Amino acid sequence: MLSEFSLIDRYFARRESAPTPRHRDEAARPLGIGDDCALIAPPPGHQLAISTDMLVEGRHFFPDVDPRAIGHKALAVNLSDLGAMGATPHAFTLALALLRAEESWLAAFSDGLFALAERFDCALIGGDTTSGPLNMCITVFGDVPHHAALRRDAARPGDDIYVSGLLGDARAGLGMLLGEWRAPDHDASAQWRRALEWPEPRVELGVALRGVAHAALDISDGLAGDLMHILRRSNVRAIVDADAVPCSDALRALPDAARRQCALAGGDDYELCFTAPASARATLAEIGERVGVPLTRIGTIETGAPAIDWRDKEGAPLSLTLQGFDHFHAD
Amino acid sequence: MLSEFSLIDRYFARRESAPTPRHRDEAARPLGIGDDCALIAPPPGHQLAISTDMLVEGRHFFPDVDPRAIGHKALAVNLSDLGAMGATPHAFTLALALLRAEESWLAAFSDGLFALAERFDCALIGGDTTSGPLNMCITVFGDVPHHAALRRDAARPGDDIYVSGLLGDARAGLGMLLGEWRAPDHDASAQWRRALEWPEPRVELGVALRGVAHAALDISDGLAGDLMHILRRSNVRAIVDADAVPCSDALRALPDAARRQCALAGGDDYELCFTAPASARATLAEIGERVGVPLTRIGTIETGAPAIDWRDKEGAPLSLTLQGFDHFHAD
Repeated sequence: MLSEFSLIDRYFARRESAPTPRHRDEAARPLGIGDDCALIAPPPGHQLAISTDMLVEGRHFFPDVDPRAIGHKALAVNLSDLGAMGATPHAFTLALALLRAEESWLAAFSDGLFALAERFDCALIGGDTTSGPLNMCITVFGDVPHHAALRRDAARPGDDIYVSGLLGDARAGLGMLLGEWRAPDHDASAQWRRALEWPEPRVELGVALRGVAHAALDISDGLAGDLMHILRRSNVRAIVDADAVPCSDALRALPDAARRQCALAGGDDYELCFTAPASARATLAEIGERVGVPLTRIGTIETGAPAIDWRDKEGAPLSLTLQGFDHFHAD
Repeated sequence: MLSEFSLIDRYFARRESAPTPRHRDEAARPLGIGDDCALIAPPPGHQLAISTDMLVEGRHFFPDVDPRAIGHKALAVNLSDLGAMGATPHAFTLALALLRAEESWLAAFSDGLFALAERFDCALIGGDTTSGPLNMCITVFGDVPHHAALRRDAARPGDDIYVSGLLGDARAGLGMLLGEWRAPDHDASAQWRRALEWPEPRVELGVALRGVAHAALDISDGLAGDLMHILRRSNVRAIVDADAVPCSDALRALPDAARRQCALAGGDDYELCFTAPASARATLAEIGERVGVPLTRIGTIETGAPAIDWRDKEGAPLSLTLQGFDHFHAD
């Protein structure tokens, strides 16, 4: 068992890397772990986008999950918020509560964490460790040019509504682990677990959507609930083709009600939902190609009080009973 | 019981206040709770000082403590880090894990939190809530002019060493609650608990020390261990008069060994320890007067390998056995 200071030193401080200098202002050089505060500044003409997420054992991951996946997911859900804002990741802080400082757990956790951090050139600049029930809180910092952030309040009537990737696999994986249903085969099972445990933050996509998309957010609590955030903040309504919402073949193997629950209200997708004018369709097709993420048009924004009009593929109204994700109620 | 969204709304989002605009750049107007990220930028010529601290029930506070005090302390320990850096508080994020969303607890917690936040004009700009064992993680943001931050690596041979306020009362309060000793009287008991539960972050002092002090930090883990951080980072040694370390009369009522353990290695003081050249003594006396915090000279910095030479008031060497604070060992 390691003391707090040698723990920080062994698994985190030595992995500290100063963020890549972004301009020649010597004064803006960052100061990281080892002082009371980290010091950073966004490049000239930029703002700092900040997001914080807390992950708790038993709520966000099962006790037996690979600690590499926990390290990955703890950062991924935060990077996802930066992507949803169109911000470029730059740095993060990590606060970690652990009951025991187990070296094998810490080694695997930090491997998963830093593998993702290094892919996005995102430096650990500070943190805190304490004893307590397993809990990790990451705060992430990204750069976004003034006026370029993708906000939730910018949807306009006439906009198309898009989602990236496939929705519902993470929720299908959770249901499988909870015994709600079985995967049709081994590949489906592996795909669902990967979606649940190793979400891929859509950072490149978010940056590419700057100046193209109007409103955007990342889908963490399920499409239905998250899209409502855009509608409320923008004061518009949506018509959505429920059958157009992109699902994996594995998910299509589930009964209709379960599939829709997963895809439309599942949570933990970490795909982007965004709106864009119809004039941007060709540009968006190119962006999807370039970043290697399928972008699917699922509906349109209209004037009216915030609400989602679900339709089937024939355009007929669908009455759906969907449970949103709420941390203080059962799903 | 409230759902997550109404919980956030009732106790936190409604208390959200955009940080006071600091300059006329419209683009730098902050965006707070309600989007994927908050957007902030330091004023021109400034850096953002960032600190994160996690508080856990049973480790940082007892289950029966007034939730107002928990809200206060969760922010205070973070503001203390800003003070130690000479940074002006500006904004914070809050991530909160709770087993139950109890309204009376939340109301009191948020009262304590926002009372302190408002005193320092520090706005809540984002956060996260989840169910889980009680845990709160605050990340705080302050502004500091380029090159003005009070760092740990700036102590120089010949510097005086100072501490602010009184040390050891918080540790004495913890010992009293754990049954290690009794307070001499009711006033002492109240003073110790106040020190433990309602620490006062030395923000004004830290800002006033810019350009005057060399190195600084806040004493969270005990003077002995924290001063060692300055010595190691600055590669110097210290001679400290153990009897000069300022203590309350209440603490002086304890036996010598217990008093020294509290004052020199107690933890949870949240006073500043800093070094400054002898030429700054008059200026420091004025600063102490102005901010209303006693500043006590306790020793000097010398060349040599990082270590603390403890002396008694006659200057004779003292051999002290002190236990530093380590979250993964008993105190």
